[in-house]
Amino acid sequence: MVDERIETPLATRHDQDGVATVTLTNPGRRNALSCAMMKSLHDIFDAIATDRDIRCVILAAEGPVFCAGHDLKEMNGISDCDKHAALFSQCSDLMMRIVTLPQPVIAKVHGMATAAGCQLVASCDLAVAGTSAKFATPGVNIGLFCSTPMVALSRNISRKHAMRMLLTGDPINAETALSMGLVSDVAADDDLDVATTTLARGIAARSGMTVQTGKQAFYKQLEMPLSDAYAYASSVMTGNMQKHDAREGIGAFVEKRHPTWRHE
Amino acid sequence: MVDERIETPLATRHDQDGVATVTLTNPGRRNALSCAMMKSLHDIFDAIATDRDIRCVILAAEGPVFCAGHDLKEMNGISDCDKHAALFSQCSDLMMRIVTLPQPVIAKVHGMATAAGCQLVASCDLAVAGTSAKFATPGVNIGLFCSTPMVALSRNISRKHAMRMLLTGDPINAETALSMGLVSDVAADDDLDVATTTLARGIAARSGMTVQTGKQAFYKQLEMPLSDAYAYASSVMTGNMQKHDAREGIGAFVEKRHPTWRHE
Amino acid sequence: MVDERIETPLATRHDQDGVATVTLTNPGRRNALSCAMMKSLHDIFDAIATDRDIRCVILAAEGPVFCAGHDLKEMNGISDCDKHAALFSQCSDLMMRIVTLPQPVIAKVHGMATAAGCQLVASCDLAVAGTSAKFATPGVNIGLFCSTPMVALSRNISRKHAMRMLLTGDPINAETALSMGLVSDVAADDDLDVATTTLARGIAARSGMTVQTGKQAFYKQLEMPLSDAYAYASSVMTGNMQKHDAREGIGAFVEKRHPTWRHE
Repeated sequence: MVDERIETPLATRHDQDGVATVTLTNPGRRNALSCAMMKSLHDIFDAIATDRDIRCVILAAEGPVFCAGHDLKEMNGISDCDKHAALFSQCSDLMMRIVTLPQPVIAKVHGMATAAGCQLVASCDLAVAGTSAKFATPGVNIGLFCSTPMVALSRNISRKHAMRMLLTGDPINAETALSMGLVSDVAADDDLDVATTTLARGIAARSGMTVQTGKQAFYKQLEMPLSDAYAYASSVMTGNMQKHDAREGIGAFVEKRHPTWRHE
Repeated sequence: MVDERIETPLATRHDQDGVATVTLTNPGRRNALSCAMMKSLHDIFDAIATDRDIRCVILAAEGPVFCAGHDLKEMNGISDCDKHAALFSQCSDLMMRIVTLPQPVIAKVHGMATAAGCQLVASCDLAVAGTSAKFATPGVNIGLFCSTPMVALSRNISRKHAMRMLLTGDPINAETALSMGLVSDVAADDDLDVATTTLARGIAARSGMTVQTGKQAFYKQLEMPLSDAYAYASSVMTGNMQKHDAREGIGAFVEKRHPTWRHE
Repeated sequence: MVDERIETPLATRHDQDGVATVTLTNPGRRNALSCAMMKSLHDIFDAIATDRDIRCVILAAEGPVFCAGHDLKEMNGISDCDKHAALFSQCSDLMMRIVTLPQPVIAKVHGMATAAGCQLVASCDLAVAGTSAKFATPGVNIGLFCSTPMVALSRNISRKHAMRMLLTGDPINAETALSMGLVSDVAADDDLDVATTTLARGIAARSGMTVQTGKQAFYKQLEMPLSDAYAYASSVMTGNMQKHDAREGIGAFVEKRHPTWRHE
């Protein structure tokens, strides 16, 4: 028995210059987050998490659509409540895997990113959108509110802007997404590859230890009251200062030379 | 004894096509939130909350001013601390009533919305502003800081923008309110009615169950840490999937036909 | 033994019309936040906190750079982990001192504000930026992530915009800082002094009691769930209403005359 899904991977990983590019490669299904796709992505991220050679990740997609969210045909075939619960848990775990990944993840978005596809973008640390990219949470149109996408969306943009997207399903364009905070960068469609690669290599050229320390602390401190956040961040910075790369970086700055990172 | 306030209602409700329009109808008092006005609004919202025919609400106002906030003449006549406490509690309860209302509420804002009037807008799920609308929290000018309005305002816009409004009382215009996140839409003054009605009818045309599930979950998950929010939202989506309208909506999408909602 | 630091103050305070202007006066060291500079600022703020004649504060700087953050030469000379911990705690305490200061603090920013210098701006209640001002958190370039600056930064601007600054160290300009929420006002460089003074005097012309009540409540309610925030803010407003200046302000408004504040 031939299983086409195993022969044609749903997602691929390609490493260069300390940057891992993870690509959704199922354009015929609009890169839908089927159970198999989510498992592929989760496995790839798990492998990256412990790979000391990778200091930045790009999340990209093949074909005209970035990602259309859940696989509705697959979902339509499930009648069991427990299986639905497992499906949404798997999706939430994938999004949390991006947030807890030690390395920063940059979404490179062309075309439409909808529902859980929009959530993927919102869950990344940075996002570069091509000018023609669009973002929407249209679950309301099919009777299934984008409740898990809204967890990420409402932590990226203001309440009324998020509610506007969730209650109407209307798409927003790249410039609007930038001004709202859903993406961090916009590039002309033709420059999207170069802009994203330049951003990723710049991050990968810094100390991996420093970047990972910062990313982890960022999300932890956000959930604390101000005084607790300062106590925590002060301890993080003190720990950071004891590391080789901080001593090297500050020494190089004072001595006006280039630092040499050990990434530790 | 004739009580004019009972003969001339302070607020009215008009239903059409699943949309309830609640209108402040005391323009001679700049639609001030007197105790009687707040009671009228609260009673109307309570009735809407349990009305299964209503799937979206518009909050509008008559006259040149949207709402000028508390009734200062009434407030000035109160010398009793307990009565002030009751007044501010009544106002906070009204704002919470909008947030906890099952149906989405859209503010339709023309003219000035100040102090607790600005808070009304901030408390709605969506807000459409006419181009000439203005928003301010000028309590600082009369020695009474807009402390309860700031609860809603600071959950809509960023800290420094909120502080700017609160510490100066300066008004902002509709475009600024849109970019900051205080309103979700801006329309030309002449198009305000049509734009708001179109938005409301679009929401009312979706499954009421879906929209209400989403609104309730939106505010609950916002107050949770990320991982708890995902656990909660996953359970909400699982429950949503077991409902008729989700099965109908997904089935219709897969079969490329229009869904027929039962709103349950 | 002559100690030049005592002879040449690192920071000065100048009072006029109820406004205290605190100025960083060490341009030769780019107004770096050395231990001595932080102590000077903290001492000045402590004195202002209990000065009933001061109702607003401007935080300004001399020379081409607003503030370059920590003193890296001083930091480079420390090898002891406990001393690093003390340094970062001292810095966090200074930032918290601004937040907990009864009076509002307005940063007046020209030139570059980097790392803990950017954090100073983010920690102020308001910030006026000259058109040529720039803001950056470039610790990532020297192996020391701006972890404590990000506590303030991430509470001013959206996540992806904050992450963009933290992971790249790239500066943003004044207009971008305004749209993101890092500053509340932008003025032409030549108008920066006048714009800031006008803003500060306007605040100082209001009731000091009212402004201080509002500032304190602002940060407290931000860290509460919505219903708790309303209960708290209602009690704050009730207390505000019992004060002379609220009765005077509301009375003056109703009687169409100017209020006379006692600032209590």
